[in-house]
Amino acid sequence: MKSAAPGKVYLVGAGPGDPELLTLKAKRLLETCDHVVYDYLVSESLLDWTRPDCQKHCVGKRAGFHSVPQEEIERMLVRLSSDGKTVVRLKGGDPFIFGRGGEEALTLKRAGVAFEVVPAVTAALGCAAYIGIPLTHRALSASVTFLSGHEMPETGGQTASVNWRAHAATGATLVLYMAMGQLTEICAELIAGGRPETTPVAVVQWGTTPRQRAVHGTLTNIGERVRAADLGPPSVVIIGDVARFGDTLSWFDPVI
Amino acid sequence: MKSAAPGKVYLVGAGPGDPELLTLKAKRLLETCDHVVYDYLVSESLLDWTRPDCQKHCVGKRAGFHSVPQEEIERMLVRLSSDGKTVVRLKGGDPFIFGRGGEEALTLKRAGVAFEVVPAVTAALGCAAYIGIPLTHRALSASVTFLSGHEMPETGGQTASVNWRAHAATGATLVLYMAMGQLTEICAELIAGGRPETTPVAVVQWGTTPRQRAVHGTLTNIGERVRAADLGPPSVVIIGDVARFGDTLSWFDPVI
Repeated sequence: MKSAAPGKVYLVGAGPGDPELLTLKAKRLLETCDHVVYDYLVSESLLDWTRPDCQKHCVGKRAGFHSVPQEEIERMLVRLSSDGKTVVRLKGGDPFIFGRGGEEALTLKRAGVAFEVVPAVTAALGCAAYIGIPLTHRALSASVTFLSGHEMPETGGQTASVNWRAHAATGATLVLYMAMGQLTEICAELIAGGRPETTPVAVVQWGTTPRQRAVHGTLTNIGERVRAADLGPPSVVIIGDVARFGDTLSWFDPVI
Repeated sequence: MKSAAPGKVYLVGAGPGDPELLTLKAKRLLETCDHVVYDYLVSESLLDWTRPDCQKHCVGKRAGFHSVPQEEIERMLVRLSSDGKTVVRLKGGDPFIFGRGGEEALTLKRAGVAFEVVPAVTAALGCAAYIGIPLTHRALSASVTFLSGHEMPETGGQTASVNWRAHAATGATLVLYMAMGQLTEICAELIAGGRPETTPVAVVQWGTTPRQRAVHGTLTNIGERVRAADLGPPSVVIIGDVARFGDTLSWFDPVI
């Protein structure tokens, strides 16, 4: 019966790391699907919710590591769903925030495959909550911007570029993804664009997980402090006056 | 036994509307708490998860309606948790995105009340996913900004102001919250700041719920189309080249 029906692909966000930050819908889909196609996940334990006969396909995707090319992933989604199967494409964070979910959805649409998109707690929201930094705050910030810190190698340079000086001028809270490799250069650009050198900055690695670590500083010294603390990916960088609350409102004490 | 322990307040995001977009942690806390202090919610059914003896306190919070003043809400959180009780402060969307969660966390910290912040799928992510608009997309957008469209009346004018022309210059995808009252004026400011008049715009009302409705247009005509379709709050406005995908990638057909 089931195999006669058309298949379906769910583009599902896995959230920022803490397995309890998964949505109820994502958990239900993991529990019922025939295939999971997943990136390197912050929490592999999410896969424990799948059925024993669910087929799990790891397709890599972590900066600096070998991964299945994007085009191959998209062909895989079409192929696996073609015989009436339900496929969960499990992606770190939210599918539509630096997750290439738009490209996968376009491929599925063009191939005539039914799909749904399941949003999730993106890393910026998860890390901000767990470190105690309100991304917007009365009298301090009425806007927040999420930015990609670098061009992902696999995009072949086709990533839209970021005008850092224009972003400096908005006064918005800035949250950088994938920015650890060029943090010092980005901070210099923001200062050149008019952000005060004393602007607070917080860097959170492995946010929302027991491995969470954070470093606080300013636009002028955060690069050095991050190197001294040996923080690397996966991290997000929160820039703006609200970042100073991280010292006051931090409530999450990771137990390692 | 329990009343001897110190109380605790959880600042919990209720997500964008679809009850299945709640996080597992939020559901667990609703199922176990002694008190829920909640705003007008998109989905009141979330309260069905509470225990029969859980005390529910509605504190209002919807544009244009009477609501309990913010200071009173904060006093209530301190008072309710003072005898060892567990309090869930349930807020629409994410607590740290236009949710005044920072203010509530500061009050709790100053009062010596233990708290945690539970992030959630904010309206921008939920609406984008359900209408099929990737907020970032290769070669189109490497940044996305969430902005508050108006000063909430209860902030007494203390909201940080938004420099619309500076945001026009970034090229980021823009997502406006609480902007229906002055959408035409904001669009004019963005054009004055350099965004092309033909920039695609999508407005989503009651996103992720069975009542979801959407209108598509451009910076020059969206105000008129929204009026013609009689769309009001709660809505989010998505502005940028990625908004054109809403026609192509829309998958959610609300059943009313």
